[in-house]
Amino acid sequence: MSLETHDVRFPTSRELDGSDAMNPDPDYSAAYVVLSTDAPDGLEGHGFAFTIGRGNDVQVAAIAALRPHLVGRSVDEVLGDLGGLWRELVHDSQLRWLGPEKGVMHMAISAVVNALWDLRAKRAGLPLWRLLASMTPEELVELVDFRYLTDALTPDEALEILRRGLAGREERTQVLLADGYPGYTTSPGWLGYDDEKLRRLCAEAIADGFTQIKLKVGADLEDDIRRLKVAREVCGPAMRIAVDANQRWDVAEAIEWVRALAPFDPWWIEEPTSPDDVVGHAAIARGIAPIRVATGEHVANRVVFKQLLQLDAISYLQIDAARVAGVNENIAILLLAAKFGVPVCPHAGGVGLCELVQHLSMFDFVAISGTMRDRVIEYVDHLHEHFIDPVRMHRGHYQAPIAAGFSSTIRPETLIAYAYPAGPIWKESLDG
Amino acid sequence: MSLETHDVRFPTSRELDGSDAMNPDPDYSAAYVVLSTDAPDGLEGHGFAFTIGRGNDVQVAAIAALRPHLVGRSVDEVLGDLGGLWRELVHDSQLRWLGPEKGVMHMAISAVVNALWDLRAKRAGLPLWRLLASMTPEELVELVDFRYLTDALTPDEALEILRRGLAGREERTQVLLADGYPGYTTSPGWLGYDDEKLRRLCAEAIADGFTQIKLKVGADLEDDIRRLKVAREVCGPAMRIAVDANQRWDVAEAIEWVRALAPFDPWWIEEPTSPDDVVGHAAIARGIAPIRVATGEHVANRVVFKQLLQLDAISYLQIDAARVAGVNENIAILLLAAKFGVPVCPHAGGVGLCELVQHLSMFDFVAISGTMRDRVIEYVDHLHEHFIDPVRMHRGHYQAPIAAGFSSTIRPETLIAYAYPAGPIWKESLDG
Repeated sequence: MSLETHDVRFPTSRELDGSDAMNPDPDYSAAYVVLSTDAPDGLEGHGFAFTIGRGNDVQVAAIAALRPHLVGRSVDEVLGDLGGLWRELVHDSQLRWLGPEKGVMHMAISAVVNALWDLRAKRAGLPLWRLLASMTPEELVELVDFRYLTDALTPDEALEILRRGLAGREERTQVLLADGYPGYTTSPGWLGYDDEKLRRLCAEAIADGFTQIKLKVGADLEDDIRRLKVAREVCGPAMRIAVDANQRWDVAEAIEWVRALAPFDPWWIEEPTSPDDVVGHAAIARGIAPIRVATGEHVANRVVFKQLLQLDAISYLQIDAARVAGVNENIAILLLAAKFGVPVCPHAGGVGLCELVQHLSMFDFVAISGTMRDRVIEYVDHLHEHFIDPVRMHRGHYQAPIAAGFSSTIRPETLIAYAYPAGPIWKESLDG
Repeated sequence: MSLETHDVRFPTSRELDGSDAMNPDPDYSAAYVVLSTDAPDGLEGHGFAFTIGRGNDVQVAAIAALRPHLVGRSVDEVLGDLGGLWRELVHDSQLRWLGPEKGVMHMAISAVVNALWDLRAKRAGLPLWRLLASMTPEELVELVDFRYLTDALTPDEALEILRRGLAGREERTQVLLADGYPGYTTSPGWLGYDDEKLRRLCAEAIADGFTQIKLKVGADLEDDIRRLKVAREVCGPAMRIAVDANQRWDVAEAIEWVRALAPFDPWWIEEPTSPDDVVGHAAIARGIAPIRVATGEHVANRVVFKQLLQLDAISYLQIDAARVAGVNENIAILLLAAKFGVPVCPHAGGVGLCELVQHLSMFDFVAISGTMRDRVIEYVDHLHEHFIDPVRMHRGHYQAPIAAGFSSTIRPETLIAYAYPAGPIWKESLDG
């Protein structure tokens, strides 16, 4: 097996797409990895960590640091024990010091683990969600590292959850293939957009069949009240309108601000404060009930998610496909959420996060939670054209992926055009 | 101002120094940064992140990613507002995504912030602890970012703590200059050592005047019982013997294991489980009382420390000089600890961590906590010879640094000899 990296960046800051209270000018980027083998099938595994610009080179260096764990090894051996490989990467006794299990190094493991799953699914000729949904409860439990989890979830409890999910797997697969999985859209709500654009995009969201949208908040309270009022006027009372503060507040400020928005019936408040502050999230949840707290896109690992659940701090758990250490750790988190009865509504957007995370929600529906009730996958209409197997939306629903793999493959011409800093998209502005 | 990096590694794994339950074969390393200016004084600021080998190159890349924040800027402007510079580095809206405030990127900020403090202290002609202890409460509070802290500590409360500490600063400075600050030694307790070596090193610790030692535990319970028994026999009942599991256990296992060691009167159990698990630490603290819980060397930032204190999860708080974002964040943590009345007993060892952290404990004594009661700084007798201004121990006490700066400067010949992978120490074994 060989491992090749790419630093790919999109100049999204030029349009203020993706602007929020903490991220005023992101350049959506991917620290991208390609695993190739000498097998005659010529199949490759593709994966990436998502970043928002500066530091994408650091993320690429971290992926390259994992090379010794893979290069020269038998692909059959590695793909045959992805639970073991996950443990080997996460518990590398020297690299572990750089986290442990968080930040740059953990996201690098995510990229590599997801690339391995992409390759395994391609070899099986199945989209990832169907590959996972074809595995036995015992095989799935073997993928999970229960270290630090057993005070909340034991392997036996996980097995029981998965065995309960065996009944009806086939019926639910057919439901997904026919109807897809509901999404919600964040496209109307970026802070950089004016009221007219917000109004127009809200109307488009309704026309597109979405039943939930999301607005960025947290920069200025008067602005937020005005924008939420506009959105509520256009959308009517039935649309769920989530709001997202992107970690802007301290605990007391979060409670006060969200209460001020309460007249417009926000569905959840997302990332009200530091993603590390489980105690703070619990205090906010108590302070703003019945409005719900959601978080997860910056939650470093399963141990932090465990505590958010133990403290009753979140009503919605937002997995991210590429921040925790890939598919394996997300299976652990889906199982934790099922144990605590908390719906999973993934974070997406960025570069390729919609493409990845749809597989995890669909697997959750088929094999773990067994329901789509109260569950939606974030959808942002950005950058999908750069993927070989982009998400397909219909009437506000993600259509189930059909192609083999994890939908993670960026087009080869994009890898060249958006290469940083030497690709043609960047070369001119950087030289200029 | 210009910024230069070095990848420096020491082949400590050849001797099993530093071996514990999670780190069997560390190669102690520094991702090292030198800040230089065009000022006629020729002074440089030196700082580093400590790692244990593989991945030190990733850490170096992360330091280099901070270059645009410093290169070409006026040194007076930067050094004159280190609170503002800290906020600029930590809240860089794109780099922040790689944490936020944790792991590789946060440790890189630590290296740079500490190098800036080294330069500022050298320019002031003072050792860092005296420079900090000469600042007003208002100046010190300005260095701290209270974001995410105000539910536990407000700027006004911090000011009050620091104003209380004004009385007696001069007397305490004299006490430090005369007597130093108590240390404890981890040298006897590495897992890789046999009982004979343990016995010999315990006797040496007594002879050297230490009143506390520490043993690594967590790999095998029977071994731990035997080793702790040996240590207690040699040391007698008065010596404090701390034990350190290096994150090896889940919650229930930690409680069970520590209870089995209770007959030998362990003083604290350090890092019983994941450093991210504040809820778990609180459960362990309740489960093993009156034995005390200590943690901190892998705690990512002030927000996690805040919660450990809020949940009454630790009896000793172990700051690390180079994991959180440098001096400024450690001042925040010292203030939090003072607010909650929890003694700070720093983590040290590694490469240069003793050299750095002594300044923070001494500053804490002079200006914040005002006491050395129940407080000790970890001491490990490794690699000090590579520093220009190494720690000086006398009768188990750190002698107060006299030289200007942060004691962070590695000898130039070491930077060359231990450069990875091209330095002479490495070249032969890597080529061979």
